[in-house]
Amino acid sequence: MEVTSGNFDETLPLIREALDECTFWAFDTEFTGLSLSGKPTDSLDTMEERYEKHVLGAKNFLVIQVGLSTFRLERNKWVSKTFNFYVFPSTVKGQDKRFTCQASSISFLASHGFDFNKFIHHGIPFLPLQTVEKLLAQTELQRQRDPIVITSEVDRKFVAELKDRVGAWWLHAEDDDRLLLPPCNSYQRAVSYQVLEEMQLLLAGQSGILVEKVEAEGGKVQLQVVRTHIEAVQAAKAREKQQKRMELIRSTGFSQVFRMLKTCRKPGVGHNCLLDLMYCVEQFDQPLPATWQECRQVVAEAFKAGIYDTSHMARSAQFADLFKGSSALEHVYSTMLEAERLAPVEHAEGFPLYRSAEGSRAHEAGYDAFMTGTAFAKLLAHLAASGVPELCKEDEDEEHLVPQGPLISTDAAAGFKDRINVHGSDVPYAALRGVQPHPERSHVLCLTQLPLRTPWSAIREKCVAAGVQVARLCAKR
Amino acid sequence: MEVTSGNFDETLPLIREALDECTFWAFDTEFTGLSLSGKPTDSLDTMEERYEKHVLGAKNFLVIQVGLSTFRLERNKWVSKTFNFYVFPSTVKGQDKRFTCQASSISFLASHGFDFNKFIHHGIPFLPLQTVEKLLAQTELQRQRDPIVITSEVDRKFVAELKDRVGAWWLHAEDDDRLLLPPCNSYQRAVSYQVLEEMQLLLAGQSGILVEKVEAEGGKVQLQVVRTHIEAVQAAKAREKQQKRMELIRSTGFSQVFRMLKTCRKPGVGHNCLLDLMYCVEQFDQPLPATWQECRQVVAEAFKAGIYDTSHMARSAQFADLFKGSSALEHVYSTMLEAERLAPVEHAEGFPLYRSAEGSRAHEAGYDAFMTGTAFAKLLAHLAASGVPELCKEDEDEEHLVPQGPLISTDAAAGFKDRINVHGSDVPYAALRGVQPHPERSHVLCLTQLPLRTPWSAIREKCVAAGVQVARLCAKR
Repeated sequence: MEVTSGNFDETLPLIREALDECTFWAFDTEFTGLSLSGKPTDSLDTMEERYEKHVLGAKNFLVIQVGLSTFRLERNKWVSKTFNFYVFPSTVKGQDKRFTCQASSISFLASHGFDFNKFIHHGIPFLPLQTVEKLLAQTELQRQRDPIVITSEVDRKFVAELKDRVGAWWLHAEDDDRLLLPPCNSYQRAVSYQVLEEMQLLLAGQSGILVEKVEAEGGKVQLQVVRTHIEAVQAAKAREKQQKRMELIRSTGFSQVFRMLKTCRKPGVGHNCLLDLMYCVEQFDQPLPATWQECRQVVAEAFKAGIYDTSHMARSAQFADLFKGSSALEHVYSTMLEAERLAPVEHAEGFPLYRSAEGSRAHEAGYDAFMTGTAFAKLLAHLAASGVPELCKEDEDEEHLVPQGPLISTDAAAGFKDRINVHGSDVPYAALRGVQPHPERSHVLCLTQLPLRTPWSAIREKCVAAGVQVARLCAKR
Repeated sequence: MEVTSGNFDETLPLIREALDECTFWAFDTEFTGLSLSGKPTDSLDTMEERYEKHVLGAKNFLVIQVGLSTFRLERNKWVSKTFNFYVFPSTVKGQDKRFTCQASSISFLASHGFDFNKFIHHGIPFLPLQTVEKLLAQTELQRQRDPIVITSEVDRKFVAELKDRVGAWWLHAEDDDRLLLPPCNSYQRAVSYQVLEEMQLLLAGQSGILVEKVEAEGGKVQLQVVRTHIEAVQAAKAREKQQKRMELIRSTGFSQVFRMLKTCRKPGVGHNCLLDLMYCVEQFDQPLPATWQECRQVVAEAFKAGIYDTSHMARSAQFADLFKGSSALEHVYSTMLEAERLAPVEHAEGFPLYRSAEGSRAHEAGYDAFMTGTAFAKLLAHLAASGVPELCKEDEDEEHLVPQGPLISTDAAAGFKDRINVHGSDVPYAALRGVQPHPERSHVLCLTQLPLRTPWSAIREKCVAAGVQVARLCAKR
């Protein structure tokens, strides 16, 4: 299901339902860049160094498409609901995000048919959850702000006139009578609100003053006071407060989906998803912390049921025979599709988007999320079938092996929980929980203090002359 | 005429012709942002401060569309040729530009129908002129680089074998005979070129060695030597050198158009074009210098025949009655269209793009360039008609006032030469030549050392209490 700003609100309940009923969810994102100029990743980065480079990326690049695919085991098959979201930063209320694009990333997306016009015209707006929480707290504070102290003669006169005018009107007013106040500037308007609030407190009886904004000719704003029943005044104030809260929560936009992922307490799956996780946390939740140690706590806390990475799984010794060295998503997906007798995956009713995709939609976030989840479901079954056969039984037609219960809790699957692939690196994995492993680098020689622009060939020559066999040379920045 | 990567090469001669024959040219650009976060322009910026903020913008944002409209006076009418270019940074040969987008700017363009897919799929690539000149110089240098010194035993053996193999073949080879060398790595390939070059020098007679790259199975490169006539060897080398030069010059892409604007020595016109000028210099010519003093020299040097700004003209005292305070491009354009009896502007044959535009294409760079040039042509005639009537004479039908010769050289027009509007500022104009004027600010009071987050209202109160009438408060960052 394609989700844009046009159908986002009506789709939210469907997303909530899909997450509530699913066994696990898979996700993928498309973004505007991988690395900033002069900050390329390096195969010899430590985990902390790699993290710092990715943080720079997360703070500058933009997630522009998010795919979410939920998977539910129904008798002898998996049923999937896939959503493909376009997101674009909101420009209302003074928001005006700057984001960086990397030409090669943008070209790559374009070559896979990404629709940039749809992204900009119809992207779902978003504000990070933490920002909205802060704004909500501020709104509360604003109600309790310090009173304006009137000091100038001009303003004293303005206040006196206002009191006279409203006081005189009040004497003869009946409920529902209105008084339009003269135009004034925004400072005087703030003063007026305060004065009318004070007058309100002094009024006895069953009636009160309701203050309304009225748009006059030329777009200027005037205030109007209405005499009305005291309960109506209070109800109007409560309504206004609630309206402001709802408006703020609505401005969270797509981040509401991120909140659902956090609160649904179902396992999540990505494919080579370290960047996806980091970019999403920064954009939809909260600013990424300074270190990987802190970040992994944030992510583990957000996704308590664990995150699995099918790229890390495909690279593991258990699957070495199956994938023969390539862990690319399309390869893993098509290999698992061909694997015999694993329970099939079907698109749920009402989710026809990728029913006839056949690879042409690869690199669209929704389709990649669907491929990732499908691969995960089948990898789990494969693990169980080869390890603990009683966990996968043949169905009635003896055609498919059907998982018997939640395979995720098997020992074999648990070995992959919260371990994320680190791309182009010998760091075994990024550990969201437990010990962060470090790579074995006793065979790596670090040459320092080389003259600027020393050619590779000169280094290679010197190494060979010194009897050192060079498998690979790379720069460490 | 819309110009993309698909028809750019074939359009270049048309652009050159249009510039050669024109009286003046007008331009406009669309870009991805106006100001970086935390660096908004300020109405009290000095010219140097404003420049520094715009430089940050120019180094981060991207020009994505350029409009060029040439105007030629033909008897009793102006004939215009308008080009609308999409540009997108090249991603070949390791180039991978990062650029920033400002959400509000992108949304603004989208709301005016900008086609982002076309920009990314079919944008004309570009490299700054200065970068290409440096690359050309480097290519020359590479030919004269230091020879590789062989030190290791392995490499000595490789060289000896190569010499033996080629030497043995040469003894019995005839012209056009070929010898395929064994596969080797890129370092050994560089060594091979050097060894074969040395062998070449030792060969007597009318024949020489031509070295060719051959793609072997699996995409690997092997070298092949060909015995051929010595003149053919030299011709092949000259051809290769010329090919590399041409390839580099072609990679200049859209910047070739910028070079034409510089070398055509015709007056240029923009509308509120300070940012357009700066962004174009940075993107297509050379990095902007540190100060406005230096920048204006660069721009004046680039455009020797002068730059005019129709926004600055429309704001001047001469036109105060005509435009009544608004200098927006569409307003200036439509006002001048309605002005009676000024020579009409027509689109040249073969340039039908905006023939039936009627305002719907506003904010497309090509159309804005056309509106700017049209307004300029009519502003010039208006100036002449009201100042020196003999410069504008009635045509045969007594219908239109037709300029008699180049109105740009009149005194009235000269007063606008090289004066660019500074948007939202009291700086009278940005002077490309002569004295840079400073605004009169004796009525501006600068409050310093205010406590953080002092509310506007408190400042206003204090000012009024001190007897200072406040027309406007603004922050200075």
